[in-house]
Amino acid sequence: MSTYKHPLEGASQDETLEIRPRFNADGLVAAIAQDVETDEVLMLAWMNADALAQTIRTGRATYWSRSREALWVKGESSGHTQEVADILVDCDQDAVLLKVRQRGAACHTDRKSCFYRRIDAAGSALSFTGTDG
Amino acid sequence: MSTYKHPLEGASQDETLEIRPRFNADGLVAAIAQDVETDEVLMLAWMNADALAQTIRTGRATYWSRSREALWVKGESSGHTQEVADILVDCDQDAVLLKVRQRGAACHTDRKSCFYRRIDAAGSALSFTGTDG
Repeated sequence: MSTYKHPLEGASQDETLEIRPRFNADGLVAAIAQDVETDEVLMLAWMNADALAQTIRTGRATYWSRSREALWVKGESSGHTQEVADILVDCDQDAVLLKVRQRGAACHTDRKSCFYRRIDAAGSALSFTGTDG
Repeated sequence: MSTYKHPLEGASQDETLEIRPRFNADGLVAAIAQDVETDEVLMLAWMNADALAQTIRTGRATYWSRSREALWVKGESSGHTQEVADILVDCDQDAVLLKVRQRGAACHTDRKSCFYRRIDAAGSALSFTGTDG
């Protein structure tokens, strides 16, 4: 069970050089995965303290599966692993940005990125972006 | 008050061309803002149905402020607006990716991006990335 220091108040949290994740009521921070080579945003997932600590320790993206309620080593069954090149935190430390080397598809639909549909200009429907949709 | 259709079950949600946001228990989807020109990830915020509808209608990024519990037209007070070039949704539609033209700083700390600190390799501390930190 990994533990982290608590968040600081106000602007101190924005400037601290201590890792002080602001976990939500479910004990999670949001985790964005971005391809370190193409800068494509691949997916958004969640991490609890253990997932964050394991990601840092192993260099392999590890999330918390909200549906399975278990640690989820990305690609463990599919082979579509994410090797972590860099981990950034945002100002209030309730989100992290993983720069990853993605093997195969990030999305469970076998697409490179989970963001394969756009909202049309009228806001009435979606369309496939066509990059790999 | 904007309303959307409910999410579909399983793989149907992944392939539908209908907008069916999967709002969480608080009625929110995650919204990632990415600079459309540099591909830099700028921030992570939240949208309720009204914020999403207003963003689509106005072409200006509008979020839900969880602290103020009010719609938040990005840059309304700071002038640091986000003109939306594209809105993508992820597979299960619980997250959106905004490609934006960012005027000024996206972060309230006056940095371009909220992700201005990295976790060091040992996982023991943060350091400023130095791009604008």
